[in-house]
Amino acid sequence: MKIKSEIEIIQKKHKDSPTLVVVLVGENPASLSYVRGKERACLKAGINCLIYKYDKNVSEKELQKVLQKLNKDSSVNGIIVQLPLPENINEDTIIQSIVPHKDVDGLTTENLGLLAAGTPRFVPATPLGVQKMLSEINFQTDGSNIVIIGRSKLVGTPLALLLSSKSEMGNATVTVCHSRTKELSKYTLQADVIIVATGRPNTLTIDMIANNPIIIDVGVNRVEDESKKNGYRLVGDTDFENIIENVSKITPVPGGVGPMTITMLLQNVLKAYTNSTKIQI
Amino acid sequence: MKIKSEIEIIQKKHKDSPTLVVVLVGENPASLSYVRGKERACLKAGINCLIYKYDKNVSEKELQKVLQKLNKDSSVNGIIVQLPLPENINEDTIIQSIVPHKDVDGLTTENLGLLAAGTPRFVPATPLGVQKMLSEINFQTDGSNIVIIGRSKLVGTPLALLLSSKSEMGNATVTVCHSRTKELSKYTLQADVIIVATGRPNTLTIDMIANNPIIIDVGVNRVEDESKKNGYRLVGDTDFENIIENVSKITPVPGGVGPMTITMLLQNVLKAYTNSTKIQI
Repeated sequence: MKIKSEIEIIQKKHKDSPTLVVVLVGENPASLSYVRGKERACLKAGINCLIYKYDKNVSEKELQKVLQKLNKDSSVNGIIVQLPLPENINEDTIIQSIVPHKDVDGLTTENLGLLAAGTPRFVPATPLGVQKMLSEINFQTDGSNIVIIGRSKLVGTPLALLLSSKSEMGNATVTVCHSRTKELSKYTLQADVIIVATGRPNTLTIDMIANNPIIIDVGVNRVEDESKKNGYRLVGDTDFENIIENVSKITPVPGGVGPMTITMLLQNVLKAYTNSTKIQI
Repeated sequence: MKIKSEIEIIQKKHKDSPTLVVVLVGENPASLSYVRGKERACLKAGINCLIYKYDKNVSEKELQKVLQKLNKDSSVNGIIVQLPLPENINEDTIIQSIVPHKDVDGLTTENLGLLAAGTPRFVPATPLGVQKMLSEINFQTDGSNIVIIGRSKLVGTPLALLLSSKSEMGNATVTVCHSRTKELSKYTLQADVIIVATGRPNTLTIDMIANNPIIIDVGVNRVEDESKKNGYRLVGDTDFENIIENVSKITPVPGGVGPMTITMLLQNVLKAYTNSTKIQI
């Protein structure tokens, strides 16, 4: 892994390692599992990962104080707040309390604005992961027809900005479809790449594709399954089992975009570290 | 005009008027003419318009000092810097020196980020003007197929964010085409609305449209014309004279988007005023 070897250089040359702080509120089981995954990946790559756990009744003010302290702490390079937060806390207020140059999730207004301006600093990890997957299979986004289904602030919107930007892995002609799109298949039937990020199983079915497109499935949905111990299984946003017959490539759920997203988070932490220390690797 | 009557209420009730400062550097004739247009529109609507003119050799530092002073001056509600600036000045540095809540051109990273997040404060006047035109002809953007040609930070990109956002005059399925798009007509032939913002005459020709779309032409190009006194005439980005046969509506150049853009600037200044004074109209 390139990130790991770059961090080894930092450790050898500078006797130092990047540090990520993950702020976690409450006991949401999915959140706990995501945070554990991030922690494991950080440690494997040589990134210090500090988990700050707070009771679900922590106040917005207290959290803001914690973030203000982390913002000022020069030993902390990246800060993420695991979402969702409990209902009594305004998520946007908390996210915007992170200083933009430590916002490795790319969720602050400043980092979103820099992306929209074509001069990105930190791009959210999921869109970055999708772009990385296309690059790893040597797909030329330049001039291609890419349809994104979903316009969320976390995935669809930044992904559209990223893939249509004037850049090496950009320059695609991007259409953003969503719940108000009429005749969705009119768009998907013509696409070279379809990226599905709706959070709804079977958003994309076999009748909606043609000419063996590449499908990237960002969804992670729990579907009841009595044959499983925990009573459910994870599925994506596509009808994977049927659709797989007519695609050139498709990402599985689980195992597709998820792990790549974590890698992109590590990359952002490394970038935050090198930006702040001005270390050249 | 709704803006004018709202300002009359402010003037009557509060003995006050909104104030816009336009910073103008050098003697670019097109810029002078644009600024004069804005000044005239402001005065007509009851907005104070102060033009700060600087020699083309003014330094970046001096301009930043001017902006810092304007940022702090509570009698100033909106600030715009007329672009382009002379080459020795970094445009982005200057634009980012404007405090976001007076940035009525919507060009700072914070305002662009708020638009991308779906919670806009100031949207650039040209995209707002395009949206307003669609609303004035009672076109339902919701569910429509809109193709934007051009991905600039000033027009194409914010327009795509605006028209695809979850909002009353949004909810369109938007495709952003640009110089790297292959088979542009594949997209334009299917569009309900085509918005052209490339700065290149004849970007859109009659063979590229079908089913009488609505065309909004954002381009303003000077084309040599010996029959004119000044040796040129203004044209848009479409082949207007031929295309007009097969459209349901089309905006002329000059006279289409331009005047609407100025109206939207006034609306942003009024919004800056009411935001800062908390006056309810």
